[in-house]
Amino acid sequence: MDLHRLEAFSDGVLAVAITLLALDLAVSGPGHGTLLSQLEGRWPQFAAYIVSFVTIGVIWVNHHALFRAIARVGRPVLFLNLLLLMSVVAIPFATSTVATYLRAGGTDSHVAAALYGVVMECMSIGFVAIFLASHRAGHLVVPLGREDARRAVVRFGLGIGAYAVAIAVALVNAPAALVLNGLVALYYVSRRTPGDGEPSPEA
Amino acid sequence: MDLHRLEAFSDGVLAVAITLLALDLAVSGPGHGTLLSQLEGRWPQFAAYIVSFVTIGVIWVNHHALFRAIARVGRPVLFLNLLLLMSVVAIPFATSTVATYLRAGGTDSHVAAALYGVVMECMSIGFVAIFLASHRAGHLVVPLGREDARRAVVRFGLGIGAYAVAIAVALVNAPAALVLNGLVALYYVSRRTPGDGEPSPEA
Amino acid sequence: MDLHRLEAFSDGVLAVAITLLALDLAVSGPGHGTLLSQLEGRWPQFAAYIVSFVTIGVIWVNHHALFRAIARVGRPVLFLNLLLLMSVVAIPFATSTVATYLRAGGTDSHVAAALYGVVMECMSIGFVAIFLASHRAGHLVVPLGREDARRAVVRFGLGIGAYAVAIAVALVNAPAALVLNGLVALYYVSRRTPGDGEPSPEA
Amino acid sequence: MDLHRLEAFSDGVLAVAITLLALDLAVSGPGHGTLLSQLEGRWPQFAAYIVSFVTIGVIWVNHHALFRAIARVGRPVLFLNLLLLMSVVAIPFATSTVATYLRAGGTDSHVAAALYGVVMECMSIGFVAIFLASHRAGHLVVPLGREDARRAVVRFGLGIGAYAVAIAVALVNAPAALVLNGLVALYYVSRRTPGDGEPSPEA
Repeated sequence: MDLHRLEAFSDGVLAVAITLLALDLAVSGPGHGTLLSQLEGRWPQFAAYIVSFVTIGVIWVNHHALFRAIARVGRPVLFLNLLLLMSVVAIPFATSTVATYLRAGGTDSHVAAALYGVVMECMSIGFVAIFLASHRAGHLVVPLGREDARRAVVRFGLGIGAYAVAIAVALVNAPAALVLNGLVALYYVSRRTPGDGEPSPEA
Repeated sequence: MDLHRLEAFSDGVLAVAITLLALDLAVSGPGHGTLLSQLEGRWPQFAAYIVSFVTIGVIWVNHHALFRAIARVGRPVLFLNLLLLMSVVAIPFATSTVATYLRAGGTDSHVAAALYGVVMECMSIGFVAIFLASHRAGHLVVPLGREDARRAVVRFGLGIGAYAVAIAVALVNAPAALVLNGLVALYYVSRRTPGDGEPSPEA
Repeated sequence: MDLHRLEAFSDGVLAVAITLLALDLAVSGPGHGTLLSQLEGRWPQFAAYIVSFVTIGVIWVNHHALFRAIARVGRPVLFLNLLLLMSVVAIPFATSTVATYLRAGGTDSHVAAALYGVVMECMSIGFVAIFLASHRAGHLVVPLGREDARRAVVRFGLGIGAYAVAIAVALVNAPAALVLNGLVALYYVSRRTPGDGEPSPEA
Repeated sequence: MDLHRLEAFSDGVLAVAITLLALDLAVSGPGHGTLLSQLEGRWPQFAAYIVSFVTIGVIWVNHHALFRAIARVGRPVLFLNLLLLMSVVAIPFATSTVATYLRAGGTDSHVAAALYGVVMECMSIGFVAIFLASHRAGHLVVPLGREDARRAVVRFGLGIGAYAVAIAVALVNAPAALVLNGLVALYYVSRRTPGDGEPSPEA
C-alpha cells in the first residue's frame, strides 16, 4: 500500500470533517429575535467550533507525525486507520450535540458530554492501535527498543486514560468534562509523537 | 491520462462521500424526548454509519489495489471510473434510506434494502468493467494469462452474484439482505484484488 | 504558480461539487407516502443526478486535458480558473432547481432550464478564456499556429453556441433544452481537447 | 513537517469551504412564489456567492504564494495555519448571514456586516502571523532584510487596517462596509505577496 495515498485520503477526510464543523454556526434567520441575540445565544456553538477545530487540527498534525514514523503499511493498519477516521468524522456530530445540550443541564448535558468523550476515546484508541500494529509488524522507520516502545505506549495511554476519566466526569459535571477534553487536546498540541523529526525531550 | 490525477480525484470523491455519512447521525434537538432516548432510537443510523463507513473504506482500499495493477488509463476507463464513483456517491443516500425505513418493516423496508443492494450492485459492476476494459486493452501492469483473468473475473463475479442475491433476499427479508451485504464487504476486507503487491493465495 | 497545486485544488473543488449532487436524492421519510411512490416521484432527481454527474465528470476530464496542454500559469489564468470553478460549483444548485421545477411545466420549468443553460454557458466560456489567455501569453506546451488555434476556438465555440441555443430553447420547451444540454456533454465525452496526448482526428 | 502535506490539507479545506458557498443558493421550491421571483429575491445570495468565492479564491492564491516563500514549517506555523483555516472555514457562515440580513437594514444588517469583517480580520491576522513567525524563525526561502520585512508587514498590515475600518463602517453603513471588503479583496487580486516568483514592483 502506498503510504502517500493513505495520507492523501486521510487528509481529505480530515479536511471535509473540519470544514463541516462550520455548518453548525448557522443562525435561524429573521423572525427568531435580533441577529445579535441569536449570535449571543449561540456562544456554545462558537466555543464548540473553536475547540473541535483545534482538536481535529491536532489530530491531523499527530496523524502526519505518526505516519512519518511508519515505513510500511499493511492491510491491518489500513483498516485501523479507517476506524480512526470513523471516529474523527463523528466529531462534528458529537460537537453539535454537546453545543446543543450543554446549557440544558441535567441528564441531557451529561449524556452529550459523555458522547463527546466516547468519540475522543475511540480516536485515541485508534492512534495507539496503529502504532502498536506497526511496531509489532516491524514497520516503523526506526524500530523502537522495548523501553522506547513502552514509553510511547505510556504517552499514548495518557490520552486513553484521560478520555476515560472525562467520560466518568461527564456523568457528574458536563462542563468539567469538556474542559478536561480541551486540556488533553492542548497537551497533544505541545507534545510530540514519535517520528516528528525533532529531538524528543526524553532523548 | 495521468493515473495519479485519476486516483487523487477518486480519493477526493470517496473522502467526501465517507464523511457525508456522518450527517445522518444528527439528533433532533431538545423537545424530541431525552437525548438518551433519541440516541437509542437512532441505533439503525449508528449501525448503518459503521457498515457504510467500512464499506466505502473497503472500496477505497480495493480501488487503490485495482489501479496499482493498471499501467495506462484511456478514455473508456476514465468514464467507467466515473460510473463507479457515481454509485459510491449514492451510498450515503442508500444508507440513510435504509436506516430510516428498516424498522418500519413491511414493503418499505424491503424497498429500502433492495435500493441499497442495487447501489452496491452498480458499484460491483463498475469494478469488473474497469478491470475487463483494462485487461482487454492490454493496459494491465502484468498482463494476465487467460486462466488468471478468468479467476479474477470469477472473484469479482462473486460480488456481483452476491449483491444480486441480496437484492432478491431484500424483497423477502430486509435485515437478512443487509447482513448479506455486510458479509460481502467483510469478504472483500480479507481478500486481495490483483495488483496489491502481496503474493496471492492462489499463486 | 505551481500547475500541480492548481490541478489539485481544482480536483478538490470538482470532487466536492460532484459528491454534493447526491444530497438531492434524499427522500422525505415516513409519513410522505410509501417509499416506492417517493422514489418514483423523484425520477427527475435521479435523472438529473446522472446527467450532472456525467457532466461534471466530463468537465473534470477536459479540465485535466486542457491543463496538460498548458506549460505555465500566470495570475490571469489562475483567476479565470476560479471563474470556471465558480460555475461548476453552481451546477448542483442548477441541477436541483431543474429537477424540482421540470414537472411543474409553464414558466417555472422554462426559467429552471434556462438557469441550467446559463450555468453551463459560463462554464463553457471559462474553458475558452483559459485556453485563449494561455495561447496569447505563449504558455501552451506546444504553441499552436494560427490555423490550429482557430480550429481549437471553433471547437470550444461549438459548446458556447450550443449552450446559447439551449438557453433560447429553454424559454420555449424545457425538456428539449435539457436534452440539448445532455447532447453537448456527450459530444465532449467523445471529443478530445488539445493536449490530451492522443493523435487528434484533425491531424 | 512536510510542507507538501500542509499545502494539500489547506487546499482540501479551502476547496470544501469554497464549494459549500453554493449551498446558500438553493431556492425554497414550489409554493413560495414563481421561480423567477424567488431568484430575483435571492440576489443578495448570488452577489454574496460571487464575492465570497473570489475572496476564498484570492486567499487560496495568496496562501500558495506565501508558502512558496517559506522553506521550513515548525509547530508554531502549523497551528497558526490552523487558525487561518478556522477563519476561512467560517466565511460561508458569515457570507450566508450577510446575504440574509443585508436587506433587513437597521441593527441586524450592521451586525451581519461587522461579523463578516471580523472573520476577514482574523483571516488577515493569520496571514501576518504565519509570515512573521517564519521570518523570525529564519525559515523563509530568501531571508528578508530588516527593510524588506518592514515593507512586507506594511503591505499585510494594510489588510488588517482596512478590515478594521470595514468593521467600524459596518456599524454605520452595512453596504458600504461590504463594498470596502470587496475592494480589499480586489487589491490582493492584483498585488503579489512575497515569494510568488515574479519580480516585485518595489524591487
